[in-house]
Amino acid sequence: MTENDRLGVGMVGYSFMGAAHSQAWRTVGRVFDTRVQPVMAALCGRRSDNTAAAAERLGWAAVETDWEKLIERRDVALVDICTPGDTHPEIAIAALEAGKHVLCEKPLANSVAEASAMTDAARRARERGVRSMVGFNYRRVPALALARRMVADGRIGTIRHVRAQYLQDFIVDPESPMMWRLDRERAGSGALGDIGAHIVDLTRFVTGQNITGVSGITQTFVPERPLDDGSGSYGEVTVDDAAAFLARLDGGGMATFEATRFATGRKNAMRLELNGSAGSLAFDFESMNELLFHDHTEDESTAGFRRILATEPDHPYMHAWWPPGHGLGYEHTFTHQMRDLLEAVGTDGDPEPSFADGLAVQHVLAAVEHSSSNQSVWTEVPRQNES
Amino acid sequence: MTENDRLGVGMVGYSFMGAAHSQAWRTVGRVFDTRVQPVMAALCGRRSDNTAAAAERLGWAAVETDWEKLIERRDVALVDICTPGDTHPEIAIAALEAGKHVLCEKPLANSVAEASAMTDAARRARERGVRSMVGFNYRRVPALALARRMVADGRIGTIRHVRAQYLQDFIVDPESPMMWRLDRERAGSGALGDIGAHIVDLTRFVTGQNITGVSGITQTFVPERPLDDGSGSYGEVTVDDAAAFLARLDGGGMATFEATRFATGRKNAMRLELNGSAGSLAFDFESMNELLFHDHTEDESTAGFRRILATEPDHPYMHAWWPPGHGLGYEHTFTHQMRDLLEAVGTDGDPEPSFADGLAVQHVLAAVEHSSSNQSVWTEVPRQNES
Amino acid sequence: MTENDRLGVGMVGYSFMGAAHSQAWRTVGRVFDTRVQPVMAALCGRRSDNTAAAAERLGWAAVETDWEKLIERRDVALVDICTPGDTHPEIAIAALEAGKHVLCEKPLANSVAEASAMTDAARRARERGVRSMVGFNYRRVPALALARRMVADGRIGTIRHVRAQYLQDFIVDPESPMMWRLDRERAGSGALGDIGAHIVDLTRFVTGQNITGVSGITQTFVPERPLDDGSGSYGEVTVDDAAAFLARLDGGGMATFEATRFATGRKNAMRLELNGSAGSLAFDFESMNELLFHDHTEDESTAGFRRILATEPDHPYMHAWWPPGHGLGYEHTFTHQMRDLLEAVGTDGDPEPSFADGLAVQHVLAAVEHSSSNQSVWTEVPRQNES
Amino acid sequence: MTENDRLGVGMVGYSFMGAAHSQAWRTVGRVFDTRVQPVMAALCGRRSDNTAAAAERLGWAAVETDWEKLIERRDVALVDICTPGDTHPEIAIAALEAGKHVLCEKPLANSVAEASAMTDAARRARERGVRSMVGFNYRRVPALALARRMVADGRIGTIRHVRAQYLQDFIVDPESPMMWRLDRERAGSGALGDIGAHIVDLTRFVTGQNITGVSGITQTFVPERPLDDGSGSYGEVTVDDAAAFLARLDGGGMATFEATRFATGRKNAMRLELNGSAGSLAFDFESMNELLFHDHTEDESTAGFRRILATEPDHPYMHAWWPPGHGLGYEHTFTHQMRDLLEAVGTDGDPEPSFADGLAVQHVLAAVEHSSSNQSVWTEVPRQNES
Repeated sequence: MTENDRLGVGMVGYSFMGAAHSQAWRTVGRVFDTRVQPVMAALCGRRSDNTAAAAERLGWAAVETDWEKLIERRDVALVDICTPGDTHPEIAIAALEAGKHVLCEKPLANSVAEASAMTDAARRARERGVRSMVGFNYRRVPALALARRMVADGRIGTIRHVRAQYLQDFIVDPESPMMWRLDRERAGSGALGDIGAHIVDLTRFVTGQNITGVSGITQTFVPERPLDDGSGSYGEVTVDDAAAFLARLDGGGMATFEATRFATGRKNAMRLELNGSAGSLAFDFESMNELLFHDHTEDESTAGFRRILATEPDHPYMHAWWPPGHGLGYEHTFTHQMRDLLEAVGTDGDPEPSFADGLAVQHVLAAVEHSSSNQSVWTEVPRQNES
Repeated sequence: MTENDRLGVGMVGYSFMGAAHSQAWRTVGRVFDTRVQPVMAALCGRRSDNTAAAAERLGWAAVETDWEKLIERRDVALVDICTPGDTHPEIAIAALEAGKHVLCEKPLANSVAEASAMTDAARRARERGVRSMVGFNYRRVPALALARRMVADGRIGTIRHVRAQYLQDFIVDPESPMMWRLDRERAGSGALGDIGAHIVDLTRFVTGQNITGVSGITQTFVPERPLDDGSGSYGEVTVDDAAAFLARLDGGGMATFEATRFATGRKNAMRLELNGSAGSLAFDFESMNELLFHDHTEDESTAGFRRILATEPDHPYMHAWWPPGHGLGYEHTFTHQMRDLLEAVGTDGDPEPSFADGLAVQHVLAAVEHSSSNQSVWTEVPRQNES
Repeated sequence: MTENDRLGVGMVGYSFMGAAHSQAWRTVGRVFDTRVQPVMAALCGRRSDNTAAAAERLGWAAVETDWEKLIERRDVALVDICTPGDTHPEIAIAALEAGKHVLCEKPLANSVAEASAMTDAARRARERGVRSMVGFNYRRVPALALARRMVADGRIGTIRHVRAQYLQDFIVDPESPMMWRLDRERAGSGALGDIGAHIVDLTRFVTGQNITGVSGITQTFVPERPLDDGSGSYGEVTVDDAAAFLARLDGGGMATFEATRFATGRKNAMRLELNGSAGSLAFDFESMNELLFHDHTEDESTAGFRRILATEPDHPYMHAWWPPGHGLGYEHTFTHQMRDLLEAVGTDGDPEPSFADGLAVQHVLAAVEHSSSNQSVWTEVPRQNES
Repeated sequence: MTENDRLGVGMVGYSFMGAAHSQAWRTVGRVFDTRVQPVMAALCGRRSDNTAAAAERLGWAAVETDWEKLIERRDVALVDICTPGDTHPEIAIAALEAGKHVLCEKPLANSVAEASAMTDAARRARERGVRSMVGFNYRRVPALALARRMVADGRIGTIRHVRAQYLQDFIVDPESPMMWRLDRERAGSGALGDIGAHIVDLTRFVTGQNITGVSGITQTFVPERPLDDGSGSYGEVTVDDAAAFLARLDGGGMATFEATRFATGRKNAMRLELNGSAGSLAFDFESMNELLFHDHTEDESTAGFRRILATEPDHPYMHAWWPPGHGLGYEHTFTHQMRDLLEAVGTDGDPEPSFADGLAVQHVLAAVEHSSSNQSVWTEVPRQNES
């Protein structure tokens, strides 16, 4: 392996997402044949002691406390952004302009304007061979990548219905404390942007279609929550606890979307069902190794939803892993993401989802917020030029 | 048993619903202890030969070809209306005015105005001791009656979310022929009124709450279909193939509804999920003997959605049937409906769902149609006075 | 309909099985086109007052308190035996000798000797045109009849494995009272004969093969139980609470069987799974409208167990019932049983399962008991001559 | 971290198990707080070129081609044996005698005699502070470790039934080639030792009980298979394709076991169900993040099998991983295994399962083989002294 085959990675942030990304960076080159091998060069965080401890634990070779320094490092060729959404634009644009490839966690940004600026920066950088990708990791669930393949192969025909839900329950308790995810300044929006963004992206990914318009409602069930500072006082929740919207696809289908943190008992139920003229597909992340498929072209006396265990060697990403029936977990979505990103970097390809894809999602979220603020009136989603 | 304990029934219509009602009338007095025993006095249909054959087969003692004659019969004390929606108002009002109890299939009528007139007639008749009921049979699924009881008992706390779907696929094939259910004149609406009505009613039944407003979309995927007359020509489909809408409940929760005949592979998937502050419930008619319940008050390390087989002696209606685990089927919902109606008649009680409940559903359906015709704008549902 | 088209039925016993049979006799002619229509002529029980009340409730025209009298009645052409197993031989043989068709509940008898005598009587009677059938009602679950059809059609190829379980839990509580089903004199055996008999019969029915040998164990977990007479004393449980056995089929496959009343939480989980060289089938009565099918001839990337809702018009018995997705319940197995019996009587056919089938099951049960009493030694099951 | 906190690992073998172990060794110290950090010192294989390539890919620092050399290495303190069963005794005993800790893949050996010798060696080594463990990785599925905890906590009471199955289908095709796993010399036995061993160990683990006796059958469905050498000739399959046996536990319960490679459509269905006097538990590895629990102490009107997602922070191993609902995969069982082993080494504890546990399993397998060769006669399993 020559120096050219190695890619120095610098990561910003090291909490939940940072830990998941680290596990993926450590693993990807050991499991997949990638042209480029990642080197975990440096980790960046605000406090040097905490960051150093995290770097040692997670396997990063060096530490920075200033993201601008991280970008400047000669051993960093790719910047992986795992911080809250409000910091994405500044870091990502600076990195791109410095000629560093960028992997940016979702949502791309907290507003269309920011996402748009980032997408422009990505486009300019691309002309200089710099790659960028937004971290919609669920595209890399083998069962969902299989679903996309089956849709593209015509296995379900013309899509009539999309039924997308992302159901969690981690703040059902009204005494669950205030956190940055509940603060519009930091997070942009609540369930809508955090988890709703995933099902919007997945719908685009699996169907290959765009959302043309929406009608939505949002709700904040618990308007204030105890601060985590021991003061006994409460902070205002400034984002939605739940969002629901209707939509139409440019292929003529209807869709319903729901994202909530108040679906008691549902832990990470990201569900997608598609009904087409020739068949149907259904998925629930709580059973992430399974894809349900109904083939409408079969004799109706033996037809039915079949449970495909998406662990066969021919299934996306699975040739590199274990024998059939030996399932994968959540973290593998990140390993697959890194694999696809490294592949694109190594072959001068365009990794997907692009920042333009991230912007497209942002347009949908903005349209939902506009509709929900305007009596749910039908709101067109601007048509994006393809990246 | 004295003459007073017997109730002569006259039924109008004998196709799908008529067959199901007949099976229920034959069975109810053999299984349940009802104060009043039904007598299957007369069946009414337009063609005398077909009606006579149906009557012999289904167990009706006499035949009429004119529903006005049926109402006049002295041996008919209750009129059971199983015809399409456009005929409901005239028959039901006439029967009520003639002092006959009425069971009317859903939807109550094809418009709010008609449903309103019927409700007025029912109110007037009630003052004379005449009873009326609308046939939302799914209220009598033991698992759903159990769900209502558990909600009323506070087992799921404050309701945050309702997720209601009624998914069928019987007209996915574009060459599936034209039928009365696809003609607005006869059916009033399509999936919305036929099956959407059921999930609106069930939401009201299980939650005990009203829907205060909606935002909706509807769609007709296949605008014309071959006529069944051998002519080779096509007829226009004048109703929706699918409808979806967002809603709010007067208890503060959000709801999503979807009714479609294009959910390929879903045969009769009437699904209801409720998420509350203390727990959740979920149901799918394709597994009608099961109710899923998540108890959020349990220790989280052993909590999870449990599958209650709604076949225990303590479950609604089940004391009269078979041992635990020996499930019921679709037709039993009608047997239970007749049992509750007979009980109400025998005790001078008010059977539920009343015509006022049917009207409340009609108001919701009308609001959905209004919204979908007006850019999905939020549309208030008029508040009904309780019956 | 002429007198010849009517078949007078006399039933002995009116508890659980009697109620289920009555519902079936009342329903069958209303739903199916049978050449012969049943007439519920007379009900026989020991106490005249109780029997009369049951007859009125269940719909029987007359009452007898002596089964010999019932057999003698000129309006009784078929005797339906719903009493405990120890009474089967005497009643059935007498009825057959009197020229009456017989439907006998399972197990056919409490011993091989008795079952053998009954089978001989059935053979002799058959020469005079008298029909007999044993009441293994689960053969009439549409999903299981479909399974048999699919096996016969070669859909699963050569059968390698049968995995059969019948799991109940109704006597898990050690204070649950003594009952006739726990008394060897009355019941013959415990879980083995009561529910194990069903899965033995179903294995023969679905596979079309015979069981050639077994190795078994049985166990009584609670050796004595409180008597139901208020005396405060306990009675000895003289039957097995659970039985398990290994078996081989004459087609070369292996099988495991388990029957128990101590499977806590399993209410009526009669499960059957078959693995063949070309596919697999799986069934659980707790979801009786579903059949799982894996087609091994499909491309492995889209193969998986599919859930067939056995409610399509082409599925066994379903043309007579409701639209797809509108499931049936436990009692319908009896309605279908009566339909098949009436069809056989009306066409001079041989109804199945025959008494010889009942005897074949009895031979298997006896072999299991022999093995379990002899250190589980492999015990051949005598090969029966076909009836 | 001092030198004392590091533990040099040498691994023998690098195919399926070796890859899984490597992923675990790379990950464990990054995710768990272990007192001792593993160092992936050297990989041993027969061919130096292949081994070197594997070492680079999997992350091992050095290469050996002779396992005796590996044991001698000063930087190797623990030997991880991932080769076929016939090589286990020699390597393991030599390593133990050389004072190296040993992790040995299952089955411990191919015979009781060998397993017994290994256990003796482990006992002797233990006196010198040398640790040993057998690799029954499924003990580390969080849902199964939770099951054990719940059994120990009395949540299901006295165990009446164990129902254990390990169902695969990877050699259903008779043209699937000969391999070492089908050769008695190399593998010891077939499905029985390969996968049956897992469910025997898990039964002991989850119940905390021993198996006292068995009655079994085995079968080889495809007696010869094409050799993989291109010769066109066939090799004899000298092991079982499937095994089934009945058993009793020393706590008074009954058990059924089945291990097969011919369960068409079942990919890795390792299933365990326990029925107790106070509740039941059920598990299927194909849905490895779920544990089903029925609590018999609840009111029967709301009782039912609940699906616990074993991803809560309080569940075994889960505090170190992702938020609730973000499941784990197959490989994590190995990471957890390494964590427990490192913990034991770091605290001078005794890792489980011990070689004595491996021997106990071997005794059961031997008893099954004895029984199946002797007309399934009941065969006592020798009582082991606890390690």
